[in-house]
Amino acid sequence: MTNTQVTLVQLDNYGPWTVTPAPRREVDLQTMQSRLYADLSQAFGMRDGYVFFTRFDNMLAVTNGLDLEDHARIQESIRNRYPVTVSLSIGTGASPADALVNATAALQDQGSAQDADRREALLGQPIDEAERTDDDVQIAHFDVVDATGKYTDELDAFSSFVNIEQGYAELMKHMHAAHDSLSFFVGGDNIIAVCPDLTDDDYDAAIQHVRETANVDLRVGVGRGVSPHDAGMGAKHALELAREDDTYVEGDLA
Amino acid sequence: MTNTQVTLVQLDNYGPWTVTPAPRREVDLQTMQSRLYADLSQAFGMRDGYVFFTRFDNMLAVTNGLDLEDHARIQESIRNRYPVTVSLSIGTGASPADALVNATAALQDQGSAQDADRREALLGQPIDEAERTDDDVQIAHFDVVDATGKYTDELDAFSSFVNIEQGYAELMKHMHAAHDSLSFFVGGDNIIAVCPDLTDDDYDAAIQHVRETANVDLRVGVGRGVSPHDAGMGAKHALELAREDDTYVEGDLA
Amino acid sequence: MTNTQVTLVQLDNYGPWTVTPAPRREVDLQTMQSRLYADLSQAFGMRDGYVFFTRFDNMLAVTNGLDLEDHARIQESIRNRYPVTVSLSIGTGASPADALVNATAALQDQGSAQDADRREALLGQPIDEAERTDDDVQIAHFDVVDATGKYTDELDAFSSFVNIEQGYAELMKHMHAAHDSLSFFVGGDNIIAVCPDLTDDDYDAAIQHVRETANVDLRVGVGRGVSPHDAGMGAKHALELAREDDTYVEGDLA
Amino acid sequence: MTNTQVTLVQLDNYGPWTVTPAPRREVDLQTMQSRLYADLSQAFGMRDGYVFFTRFDNMLAVTNGLDLEDHARIQESIRNRYPVTVSLSIGTGASPADALVNATAALQDQGSAQDADRREALLGQPIDEAERTDDDVQIAHFDVVDATGKYTDELDAFSSFVNIEQGYAELMKHMHAAHDSLSFFVGGDNIIAVCPDLTDDDYDAAIQHVRETANVDLRVGVGRGVSPHDAGMGAKHALELAREDDTYVEGDLA
Ligand SMILES: Nc1nc2c(ncn2[C@@H]2O[C@H](COP(=O)(O)OP(=O)(O)OP(=O)(O)O)[C@@H](O)[C@H]2O)c(=O)[nH]1
Ligand SMILES: Nc1nc2c(ncn2[C@@H]2O[C@H](COP(=O)(O)OP(=O)(O)OP(=O)(O)O)[C@@H](O)[C@H]2O)c(=O)[nH]1
Ligand SMILES: Nc1nc2c(ncn2[C@@H]2O[C@H](COP(=O)(O)OP(=O)(O)OP(=O)(O)O)[C@@H](O)[C@H]2O)c(=O)[nH]1
Ligand SMILES: Nc1nc2c(ncn2[C@@H]2O[C@H](COP(=O)(O)OP(=O)(O)OP(=O)(O)O)[C@@H](O)[C@H]2O)c(=O)[nH]1
Ligand SMILES: [Ca+2]
Ligand SMILES: [Ca+2]
Ligand SMILES: [Ca+2]
Ligand SMILES: [Ca+2]
Repeated sequence: MTNTQVTLVQLDNYGPWTVTPAPRREVDLQTMQSRLYADLSQAFGMRDGYVFFTRFDNMLAVTNGLDLEDHARIQESIRNRYPVTVSLSIGTGASPADALVNATAALQDQGSAQDADRREALLGQPIDEAERTDDDVQIAHFDVVDATGKYTDELDAFSSFVNIEQGYAELMKHMHAAHDSLSFFVGGDNIIAVCPDLTDDDYDAAIQHVRETANVDLRVGVGRGVSPHDAGMGAKHALELAREDDTYVEGDLA
Repeated sequence: MTNTQVTLVQLDNYGPWTVTPAPRREVDLQTMQSRLYADLSQAFGMRDGYVFFTRFDNMLAVTNGLDLEDHARIQESIRNRYPVTVSLSIGTGASPADALVNATAALQDQGSAQDADRREALLGQPIDEAERTDDDVQIAHFDVVDATGKYTDELDAFSSFVNIEQGYAELMKHMHAAHDSLSFFVGGDNIIAVCPDLTDDDYDAAIQHVRETANVDLRVGVGRGVSPHDAGMGAKHALELAREDDTYVEGDLA
Repeated sequence: MTNTQVTLVQLDNYGPWTVTPAPRREVDLQTMQSRLYADLSQAFGMRDGYVFFTRFDNMLAVTNGLDLEDHARIQESIRNRYPVTVSLSIGTGASPADALVNATAALQDQGSAQDADRREALLGQPIDEAERTDDDVQIAHFDVVDATGKYTDELDAFSSFVNIEQGYAELMKHMHAAHDSLSFFVGGDNIIAVCPDLTDDDYDAAIQHVRETANVDLRVGVGRGVSPHDAGMGAKHALELAREDDTYVEGDLA
Repeated sequence: MTNTQVTLVQLDNYGPWTVTPAPRREVDLQTMQSRLYADLSQAFGMRDGYVFFTRFDNMLAVTNGLDLEDHARIQESIRNRYPVTVSLSIGTGASPADALVNATAALQDQGSAQDADRREALLGQPIDEAERTDDDVQIAHFDVVDATGKYTDELDAFSSFVNIEQGYAELMKHMHAAHDSLSFFVGGDNIIAVCPDLTDDDYDAAIQHVRETANVDLRVGVGRGVSPHDAGMGAKHALELAREDDTYVEGDLA
């Protein structure tokens, strides 16, 4: 059974900061946000975690393998190098969606995202090192079939984007509602989903749902592991297999 | 009348690179992509341009005020500092969507996005310095009303994201189909749209469309200017006005 | 005759910040400092300026071609993205050393580097656009002859460094005292000097001085131009010539 | 007794790359080098290591606590995000200087720093986890007394730099020759030295040497620990003590 550890990363009181004393240059906000994300990606990644940019002011990480001290260090490093600070809240559970519900609720209990007095909360309890198993994380790496031939080289760049974005919008809703999974667009035509124990049929159904609702053709590789990196790398290799064999679902499935 | 200059930024042959000789660590791809975007944001921004991350392997910039030499320098700087290269294609026109159609077509003419021989294309013609006017760029800055109170502090972080993402998906399609506008999620609850000459009523209708289809409440500030920065800063100030006066549409409108 | 425009970049009240409320992690300070330098290098560089890291809390830039607005924008961008702010002070003159004396004095007049109330000073006057000429900047690019064969592949890495560092220490003092020039180590075995009108003989004597005092063998390429980039690129090409012809001094000399 | 683990980081075949096919823009080289250093600082630092920029093409790290896998991951991450690759060579020993001699020799055995065929060497053996002790690393943090009052606020910025640089040049040579220590300028007026077991008197003598040869007044805090971070943070706290008590040498000394 999966046992996902998620961490909610929330910038503290960020909205007011963006317009104090006057609206800040958008290009600077964009640079600051994307570099903060890049740094978190390396910091969590050095310990085999994954982080997704989501809304940039609220990022979601999968952190199996990172303990409280790791989280505290990342929090401190941001404070030392950025004009903003972050709160971190950890949740765990068989269902990624539930784990996040818990993580979010704990942070909300401490005050509003726009509360000037709530800074650098560090909440929740990581999974005990002794209880971690090779089945803890299931990651699915979805990819659009022949995105280059069907979209990038064919349509104008915004229309290509609209298509892929629609595929993502449908997949994220379906996986969340039907399977308690958290799906994230990671650039290009790729979507990474953090899932509980799902079956071959679950993935088939998801792919079919996106084909029907958004007319976008996906394939998926699925991996499992003790950490997001292990599961995610398994998913990538499975996806390569699917590409070679021209199948839709491959990987480490029940 | 608006005269928008857009630049399509396309990573050269990026798909194959991500899996050669084997799939690369996702956290490294994420870091590389988001830093490349951050650098472009600063580089275009130093000359008052805007760039949006879009799909990360295909980014869209609004570049009124940047000439071919500026583009060439940015291209060279990426080559000198990243393991990947970029092609740049410029298009212009009263309609942002049409300008991008032209820019994309010119690049597609040079070969596929996954063509190993097509590297660092630099295409198109910027607007003549002598022809630039204060009306060239119209930018609309959309923002969700009370996102903190309605979503961030209330729902779990993924559900908040789903809501805002649905609002964005509806707005981007509507603005593209109805108004030849290009809309981009820029983090938090903010969407920036690059538009032709639109009216008060056009924006009202867009806001109503999103309310009806996605149940998300938006307001918008609109700015015009000789450059994306000027128009965008105007839009931000207009949005602050809308916040203060609790109105839905403010700004530099016909 | 040269007319160098230098800018002193000074972090505001940085010393106290590094130990408040307690000493900050050194790796974070290192990361923050070197990224700030990297960003300034791109920002000044986009407009053909050069910046040198020097002491990191005090950096020196050569900024022919950047006006006050450019400086203000760079200052604002740092404020928007870093936990520290910078003061900028511009000086100009035929002698780079004198230009810097003026720039420094103007900043010192505003208060101490560790004065909590002196923030984001922006001082001095750039060279008038109309007065700029192709002779304004002279840059010399010094390089150790066969550093790889004599040091890197032969000695332990610290001893190699000691040798190159001694060469640099002697050159910087000599060029400053004898020629009002500002010399900066730029990594590897390279030193870039910003000079007034110097002759072939001046450079020969400098090279001989370093050979005698530090036993380090240098060659140099010299360039002139309207901007640091133009002069610096000329110097690099001249250095390549010197390498090919096995000479010691090449370039754009009186 | 100390047991220092050092890692030599050498960019592979970097010299030729900087001029192929033609000399690259200096600002891009500066940006690339300093960001590479910043990333290594975070990557080693996440595991309590220290890295010093030294020559930028050859960097020196103190890596007690990082195993081969950590090194391999850092190497891979650089390859995935930069246009250059790095070789890493680990050496260990009671004397930091000797540890580096071994690390350098091992890398030189694999070929020249400018050998196109020697890429991403990963050499040496880290200290066994079981053998690590709280005495393994000794770090001394030197700082100029009242640098602001004596230099920064008094002299022009280059003359200040010359003074501090001379102090550094004398200290680095003395500590290397007399004490097998590796000393690095870390910005501002700070020098960090990695040392074997040294006494109060050794540090007193070093400070006196710098006062006599370079007329620069230093104080020093010394720390010990199982990792560079632990020792270095101890050194910083000791330096704060020395500041408060107006003494010259403080810390964890025999
Ligand atoms: N984040 C991420 N993006 C990737 C990865 N692999 C590919 N991409 C992105 O996906 C885009 C399209 O590449 P591919 O999926 O290889 O191309 P395609 O035309 O869809 O071809 P097939 O997927 O093989 O049918 C690239 O430009 C990348 O942006 C990956 O592992 N991670
Ligand atoms: N990119 C970008 N994001 C912004 C900007 N201003 C705010 N945001 C984002 O929007 C989020 C929400 O902030 P606000 O919009 O101020 O908060 P709100 O609760 O929706 O309140 P109102 O908008 O005032 O109704 C912040 O966390 C930021 O991520 C901006 O100028 N640019
Ligand atoms: N900043 C900077 N560093 C450079 C440049 N060119 C080379 N270097 C550095 O110099 C180091 C040594 O390279 P070279 O100077 O080519 O090698 P060499 O062995 O001294 O050979 P020759 O100079 O040709 O005699 C490289 O590792 C780089 O760090 C440059 O243009 N700018
Ligand atoms: N790398 C690094 N640099 C520091 C640190 N602390 C201070 N600095 C640098 O040192 C410079 C001078 O600051 P201080 O040493 O506090 O000032 P000072 O005038 O010499 O005063 P005293 O040292 O208290 O006599 C700052 O601008 C920083 O660049 C540190 O912990 N690490
Ligand atoms: Ca695909
Ligand atoms: Ca809002
Ligand atoms: Ca050389
Ligand atoms: Ca000091």
